[in-house]
Amino acid sequence: MTVNNDLLKERQNATIKSEDFAVWWSGGKDELYKRRALEKLFFDDPQFDDPKDIMNYTHKQLYEYTTAKSTKVIQKLREWYREEQKKQGVRTTSIEDMYLFRSLLSGPLGTGLFQQNFPLRLHFSMFLTALLGQSNEEQCREWLEKAWNMKGIIGTYAQTELGHGTYIRGLETRADYDIEKREFVLNTPTLTAYKWWPGGLGHTANMVILMAQLYIKDKHYGLQPFLVRIRNERTHQPEPGVDVGDVGPKLGVNGVNNGFLGLKNVRIPLKQMLSKHNQVLADGTFVKGPEPVMLYSTMSYVRVNIVKDVSFNLLQAAVIATRYSAIRRQGIESASPKKEIQVLDFLTQQHKVFPQIAKGIFYRLAADYVWELYRSVHKELEQGNKRNLSELHALSCCLKAVCSHEAAKGVETLRKSCGGHGYLNSANFMAIYGSATAACTYEGENTVLLLQTARFLVKYFEEGIRRKYLPKSVVYLRTSGQVKWSLNLETIVKILEYTSLERVKYVFLQQRSFTKAQPDRSAQKGANRAGLILTQTAIMHGKAFLARMSYEEINKQINKGKFNDSLKPVMQQLLHIFILELFLTSLDDILRFNRSITAKEIEQIERLYEEMLLAFRPNAVALVDGFEFHDRVLGSTLGCYDGRAYERLMEEARKCELNQEPVNQVFDTHLKQLLQAKL
Amino acid sequence: MTVNNDLLKERQNATIKSEDFAVWWSGGKDELYKRRALEKLFFDDPQFDDPKDIMNYTHKQLYEYTTAKSTKVIQKLREWYREEQKKQGVRTTSIEDMYLFRSLLSGPLGTGLFQQNFPLRLHFSMFLTALLGQSNEEQCREWLEKAWNMKGIIGTYAQTELGHGTYIRGLETRADYDIEKREFVLNTPTLTAYKWWPGGLGHTANMVILMAQLYIKDKHYGLQPFLVRIRNERTHQPEPGVDVGDVGPKLGVNGVNNGFLGLKNVRIPLKQMLSKHNQVLADGTFVKGPEPVMLYSTMSYVRVNIVKDVSFNLLQAAVIATRYSAIRRQGIESASPKKEIQVLDFLTQQHKVFPQIAKGIFYRLAADYVWELYRSVHKELEQGNKRNLSELHALSCCLKAVCSHEAAKGVETLRKSCGGHGYLNSANFMAIYGSATAACTYEGENTVLLLQTARFLVKYFEEGIRRKYLPKSVVYLRTSGQVKWSLNLETIVKILEYTSLERVKYVFLQQRSFTKAQPDRSAQKGANRAGLILTQTAIMHGKAFLARMSYEEINKQINKGKFNDSLKPVMQQLLHIFILELFLTSLDDILRFNRSITAKEIEQIERLYEEMLLAFRPNAVALVDGFEFHDRVLGSTLGCYDGRAYERLMEEARKCELNQEPVNQVFDTHLKQLLQAKL
Repeated sequence: MTVNNDLLKERQNATIKSEDFAVWWSGGKDELYKRRALEKLFFDDPQFDDPKDIMNYTHKQLYEYTTAKSTKVIQKLREWYREEQKKQGVRTTSIEDMYLFRSLLSGPLGTGLFQQNFPLRLHFSMFLTALLGQSNEEQCREWLEKAWNMKGIIGTYAQTELGHGTYIRGLETRADYDIEKREFVLNTPTLTAYKWWPGGLGHTANMVILMAQLYIKDKHYGLQPFLVRIRNERTHQPEPGVDVGDVGPKLGVNGVNNGFLGLKNVRIPLKQMLSKHNQVLADGTFVKGPEPVMLYSTMSYVRVNIVKDVSFNLLQAAVIATRYSAIRRQGIESASPKKEIQVLDFLTQQHKVFPQIAKGIFYRLAADYVWELYRSVHKELEQGNKRNLSELHALSCCLKAVCSHEAAKGVETLRKSCGGHGYLNSANFMAIYGSATAACTYEGENTVLLLQTARFLVKYFEEGIRRKYLPKSVVYLRTSGQVKWSLNLETIVKILEYTSLERVKYVFLQQRSFTKAQPDRSAQKGANRAGLILTQTAIMHGKAFLARMSYEEINKQINKGKFNDSLKPVMQQLLHIFILELFLTSLDDILRFNRSITAKEIEQIERLYEEMLLAFRPNAVALVDGFEFHDRVLGSTLGCYDGRAYERLMEEARKCELNQEPVNQVFDTHLKQLLQAKL
Repeated sequence: MTVNNDLLKERQNATIKSEDFAVWWSGGKDELYKRRALEKLFFDDPQFDDPKDIMNYTHKQLYEYTTAKSTKVIQKLREWYREEQKKQGVRTTSIEDMYLFRSLLSGPLGTGLFQQNFPLRLHFSMFLTALLGQSNEEQCREWLEKAWNMKGIIGTYAQTELGHGTYIRGLETRADYDIEKREFVLNTPTLTAYKWWPGGLGHTANMVILMAQLYIKDKHYGLQPFLVRIRNERTHQPEPGVDVGDVGPKLGVNGVNNGFLGLKNVRIPLKQMLSKHNQVLADGTFVKGPEPVMLYSTMSYVRVNIVKDVSFNLLQAAVIATRYSAIRRQGIESASPKKEIQVLDFLTQQHKVFPQIAKGIFYRLAADYVWELYRSVHKELEQGNKRNLSELHALSCCLKAVCSHEAAKGVETLRKSCGGHGYLNSANFMAIYGSATAACTYEGENTVLLLQTARFLVKYFEEGIRRKYLPKSVVYLRTSGQVKWSLNLETIVKILEYTSLERVKYVFLQQRSFTKAQPDRSAQKGANRAGLILTQTAIMHGKAFLARMSYEEINKQINKGKFNDSLKPVMQQLLHIFILELFLTSLDDILRFNRSITAKEIEQIERLYEEMLLAFRPNAVALVDGFEFHDRVLGSTLGCYDGRAYERLMEEARKCELNQEPVNQVFDTHLKQLLQAKL
């Protein structure tokens, strides 16, 4: 392989070994080798090579190609999985296996195979999880193994409607229980009741878990989950009363076959209401189950995964931009006029690129942190202990909102840092952005999640003094007194926490006075009036948490000896870049609530931040190599390992269908007349 | 026309008349009526109706359709133009006509006809302007009329190369003068020398103005413009030695046929070096002309137009989001549980949408302001007076960078404010974003432009005391002393200016100390080291200018009686929203450099900002109606005048090619096997 000279030099001159970082990033050598072996298995398999002209595919062609390919990928993944089970002497499938499939399909492996996502993903990420989480034992026995093996079943999860997303109580799809026939009659009574958005729903899934308002004898019993066949198992024809299709081309994830679904008097047997929580007896008696606390934690599980996904998206983009910035040259330095300057040497460029690398890393660590929290809360719940459930909920809401927003913004910053060429589809930033920005809206729209977080903060602040126990992430709500200045990360983290505390205090008082000011003293109206500052408060909390978590985590890992002598200072640089950037982008709040910080101190932070960018510069390429994203995972003309960006840009352009003939027919049909027009 | 009930009510309950705003926005009744008549002429013409299934077009199909359509549009536009000339008794074509064409084709009319832009646009916006600006009299006589009438000529402007954009001295394309044959020999000697990006270049243009490094007897004479035929006038085949094609699909403007161009020993006669500024005599003597000051002002002209374009993009998106937010409902209020709340009633939503309306309006006013400046500087230059040239340059750089960045960001904020549906292509945010974000990169990459602005600011600050004359936009650099607090816009504008002044002072001192700290005391290295704070300083200046300009402009218009009693308070609200948002998003700098502002005062600003959002709320729909964007200009399922968003979403989805058959073939070929797999 011919590698671009600039990249060669970058790799030679680095003080770290990419492999060292890769081992840490993967969670150890074993994990790294496993990942490499698995990716090799798939990426070296010629049946998964995309055709040369995939860039010219229509929405329909992309669907057909992606679906066909994904059946082969699933087959192969299963074979691999059975081999693994054999090796480990395991014979049963556990929930961990579902997690594993979900994580493989949405991480580097799945992305390297499907840059625009694929329609079967939802079967694993949502359908199986929901089926497991909402079925009673009998239903599990009947459906779960079949579903896991896709025996006659491709599923998806249908909740969102054309007219309602976030406010799920407003969903209009109805399930009326017909006592005589012991069946539910399903309907989307209005246009806005159409299910809209579920992945794989358009032309792929033949069953859905449908969220619908349950009515028995016209009495409403709230939203319940139903297992509904929408396409015939053998013919794939829509079942009678089913109106289903694709929602059309989108900004991203065009391979995922998001669909719409209308139902007209579709009937399913009684036993297909998923009844882990609530149940309907044959005679129409509604049996309310215990509060579905586990459901809340499931939503947290989904959101943690989103944080992990967007961290990955951000890193994809950061690897592309880092490599391209090392080979792109612009302008000369009067001292060495022979060769132009690498763009990566400009401080302004470093400021665009390096914080994104740091964010990608620390968002993944944050996801790992909340994932551990999820596991421990789950255990606590099984013991009837709910004291950390609200924190899990609030933290996963907050991080999902903050990280998806920042990641999407970061991908765009990185795209623009590549100048015009970032704008080409072949650079692949658009597909990456399409994934990252979608995460701002699905599984809880960000503003709504921030409001939920803020409500939690205000509540815990208000009750803080009386509560014996405060969950870890909000312990700082009990601190008091301004922080004494000192130029180190510990102090900076404390200032961020103090600022967040002051913000919570401020919003608590404001909200109270807003409520008082309402003619009807409505707390709801008061909360709406405080909406803006509430969301800002949740963001500040998220930043404070991210700073604290990353600070403690890196120090813990240093103490455990996880970094060798060459890697340690580089990780320290990244930690500084991450936390100082959090500080500098919170300066409005910090100065507002910490009146004692001086201009000189801010200058010190600014200079330190710049110095860290410059210090990190020599290892940038070697470090991003350590994420070990295969060229197919990046999917970019600009970011390949060999750095031959210009060659690839030209190769891709030549593949464009329009370039297959020197003169397009439109010359003869139209342009010619224009050129000869008599005026 | 059936109009959505919510929109009907919004229009009934407004206190302003949309028409009143429309008159002001269009610059008077005459202008408004003219615009309406012109748009009617085109939008009512059935030959310009797009086919139902245009959403399914490939890149190639879109090119062919767009090019064909654009020839018809140009024909019709010419007919209209000749009619207008007749009416006014004018027979010659002036530079104003070129401006007019440019402005019509990039504004609502052009956008309503071509949502993804079109390949002939560059002929009018760049080719003609450059031809006029760089040709000597003889060349003007020979080419200008032909070019204006497209007699055998479709042109574009080819400067940017695969390997170089912003740093034009690094361009590699060569023009070697062959004295014997009195010809220039044109070459792109490397892969990176390929011209890359010019609109219309791929398959449409048959001539280009080519920027190339001139060599005479191997001596370098800098970058010069050459007029080059690249495709045969009759056959449209690429000329010998010409390698030309489309650069491939992009994030946006996919109708514009951006192209690449390689040249191998292509020869053109001596007289086709455009010689307004410099000339080559037959014997190879290079005659250097006077400094091309007019060229700088031409770049300013291009950048002013970009500010206008992105203001338009932002307003397109704002109209869509405003209307959709009025019909979208989410959640109930306990006081009135019957009907869900309009999303537009949430303060968080108002904060997403209304500042964008204000920005769209005031960015247009800023463009108008700089346009006037451009005209007056042009006149001054003709009289040999250059004292405002630097300001024109700096201001147009700064505003282009600040407004394109904010507009692109704003379009994305608006898209996300529409929830998931904003993600669909049929909502059209993506095409709008594609236009707005491209403007961050072309015609001077934003970071580079900000650095140029900052250099100007530092220079004028440093020389401020000695200079007799300071251009208007930097007069504030001479003020001193902190601003005395008072809760009114005048004070807030002054605080923004004071903050900008302090920032300039800070960066001036820092840059000096950075330079001193370099081992070789290199000013260039010092400037790079100061790069980050330099760009931030330029942004702060841009904000201060925008605040001052809009404050003075609206007050001037009020004093002139341009707003009636119902419109005046609404314009005041928009002005407040605009300036207070500038204040609140600059709070980090404001508090850093104005230590006397109290927490209480910030609260006052925050409350005032929120109150202005709430006050503007009842007129939001009526006001955006007043931009009079035809449904075709918005091109959005979500934003149409009649508010039938859900109906249109469904209609568009049904048009998707994938939905034309109930079962896709991939079921038989692949899915079926997966469903029946033996495990």
